[in-house]
Amino acid sequence: TARNLLLLPGDGIGPEAMAEVRKIIAYMNEAHGAGFVTDEGLVGGSAYDAHGAAISEEDMAKALAADAVLFGAVGGPKWDDVPYDVRPEAGLLRLRKDLELFANLRPAICYPALANASSLKPELVEGLDILIVRELTGGVYFGEPKTITDLGNGQKRAIDTQVYDTYEIERISAVAFELARTRGNRVCSMEKRNVMKSGVLWNQVVTATHKDKFSDVKLDHMLADAGGMQLVRAPKQFDVIVTDNLFGDMLSDVAAMLTGSLGMLPSASLGAPDGKTGKRKALYEPVHGSAPDIAGTGVANPIAMIASFAMCLRYSFNMVTEADRLEKAIANVLDKGIRTGDIMAEGCRQVGTVEMGDAILAEFKAL
Amino acid sequence: TARNLLLLPGDGIGPEAMAEVRKIIAYMNEAHGAGFVTDEGLVGGSAYDAHGAAISEEDMAKALAADAVLFGAVGGPKWDDVPYDVRPEAGLLRLRKDLELFANLRPAICYPALANASSLKPELVEGLDILIVRELTGGVYFGEPKTITDLGNGQKRAIDTQVYDTYEIERISAVAFELARTRGNRVCSMEKRNVMKSGVLWNQVVTATHKDKFSDVKLDHMLADAGGMQLVRAPKQFDVIVTDNLFGDMLSDVAAMLTGSLGMLPSASLGAPDGKTGKRKALYEPVHGSAPDIAGTGVANPIAMIASFAMCLRYSFNMVTEADRLEKAIANVLDKGIRTGDIMAEGCRQVGTVEMGDAILAEFKAL
Ligand SMILES: CC(C)[C@H](C(=O)O)[C@@H](O)C(=O)O
Ligand SMILES: CC(C)[C@H](C(=O)O)[C@@H](O)C(=O)O
Repeated sequence: TARNLLLLPGDGIGPEAMAEVRKIIAYMNEAHGAGFVTDEGLVGGSAYDAHGAAISEEDMAKALAADAVLFGAVGGPKWDDVPYDVRPEAGLLRLRKDLELFANLRPAICYPALANASSLKPELVEGLDILIVRELTGGVYFGEPKTITDLGNGQKRAIDTQVYDTYEIERISAVAFELARTRGNRVCSMEKRNVMKSGVLWNQVVTATHKDKFSDVKLDHMLADAGGMQLVRAPKQFDVIVTDNLFGDMLSDVAAMLTGSLGMLPSASLGAPDGKTGKRKALYEPVHGSAPDIAGTGVANPIAMIASFAMCLRYSFNMVTEADRLEKAIANVLDKGIRTGDIMAEGCRQVGTVEMGDAILAEFKAL
Repeated sequence: TARNLLLLPGDGIGPEAMAEVRKIIAYMNEAHGAGFVTDEGLVGGSAYDAHGAAISEEDMAKALAADAVLFGAVGGPKWDDVPYDVRPEAGLLRLRKDLELFANLRPAICYPALANASSLKPELVEGLDILIVRELTGGVYFGEPKTITDLGNGQKRAIDTQVYDTYEIERISAVAFELARTRGNRVCSMEKRNVMKSGVLWNQVVTATHKDKFSDVKLDHMLADAGGMQLVRAPKQFDVIVTDNLFGDMLSDVAAMLTGSLGMLPSASLGAPDGKTGKRKALYEPVHGSAPDIAGTGVANPIAMIASFAMCLRYSFNMVTEADRLEKAIANVLDKGIRTGDIMAEGCRQVGTVEMGDAILAEFKAL
């Protein structure tokens, strides 16, 4: 049976990174009859240039129909002044919302070969393996009202609204607890219940969900600001962190930077399993952005995009062996001292995007 | 003329830390006729235990009348289950709001003697000197509606509202630009304009304020999530950071942790200068919390509280020489290898709260 992928390379280094994933897909189809059928669309600035929208209705329909979406990156100075609702990020936010991708999985893993690349002392990050589970379709990202009003007297008023309902917190915490069971069996929930009512509800619902269904998992609570501190102070204390959309945005970026290798980190955004088929909608994207400054120069690190495809194999197609193998291929290539510029270190060999992709593919074939 | 101080030691280690400041105040009165007149009140859990409120009306009146408030810390497990509106933090939030302390200054300074205490590599934090200017009376902390509603079907809905008006952004950015002129002359403004309307307005108003009145200062803009990353990656790139209440809460805690010495960091919360007298209301508090786990054991680090008093000398009483002298006294004591347990290092001498306070006072007298 066909495995339908929609590729949305986006802007900046997105297309270059996606090209390296295409090679892996082609190989898996040829050598293993994996049956991937790929289609392609535009998102972000490139969609705006073509259609005047951050994603076209046609591409949205394709995304809704696909088994999984592979997403590159969006944005760049070229589109800094386009109207708010067609800015590049609007394409990504619409995909998350319309596909109901409420669970954003952001692993922060420190590859042993890269422990020195972190700005933290190596002993604090060696072996780091955190999974941040971020709520992705609620909170201040989508709550209404979200407005700027002219008050008339030279003053404007901007309003954003954070809204969370019980069920939204229940389902994201269930995802976090389930994933914790496959790892260190510990969840730390982060909010600001001392300031925000959504933090109070978050805390209550996570606690209740834990008591009802997941009392075998160890649960802690931390204020989000203290959580940010603790991530910097002693990141290895964490296993799974579950938090809301905005805190997840901040905390996952801090966690990502701890690994010293933003160009390495993948993410998965998952919907709920379909009642009938059990399938969940999904989008996979690197954590890094579109890096317009290096786009087109052939130096971008494709590893985060390739690792995102490994997550796709694991979570959308249950191809666990292949996912493990692809992740192992990445680790082996790093162990061999092959590096793109962003993770270059003394005694290593510096390569470009294509060579890195080739090296990982060769390793993947050999494993 | 009298200099009126209200001391609000609060909970946990607050009173122990405040005791060390009292000694310095007494010395300044005796030896230099500084004329400090101190009064005292309760805040947080200790106020709740005494009055059933996180601060009494009487103490609020004293705070409004004082030239400056010195604040210790609030909270602890004892009060984890008190009703939301009388929780310990409510006392602090009410002080900020009713005194209109819109400008929160949080220096993140890495004392040379402590560069090794950071979880970051020493070369990344040696000489670090960032000032975070956080908006403190607006945003999601105080916006309405702020509610939890029972939707009836087993579901609740929590709502928090972020509100910013032009004038609020104008005045906080003016403070940031003015302070930048006294330091590295650079401001980095952080928001999430790609997701939040308040971020869009924030960006516009900071840009306009800069253009109108502060174009001699270098201004950059950064998305708040990228800002968090950059703080971890290369903190020395920043001089002054200006940001909203919630981002400021997160980012200043991350920045604080970079210095490796949370027990060292002071803060000042300032109001607008009075139209007639030019005086501004002010509250000074350590960045660290009430540390209930070590309260009463005599090991707490009083430096953040003493450094907060140094900020009080500087910003409320324009006693610049004395402020410099007190800060120098702290640095000298550290240089001599005298340390509380939280910042203990090989070859240093470990002391308790009182000894540390005595050492700083002795150094202050000698300078
Ligand atoms: C591009 C932006 C809208 C997005 C977000 O804020 O969620 C990004 O920062 C992320 O973390 O995926
Ligand atoms: C105690 C709490 C209400 C407070 C805040 O969130 O502002 C604290 O974290 C701070 O940063 O001063």
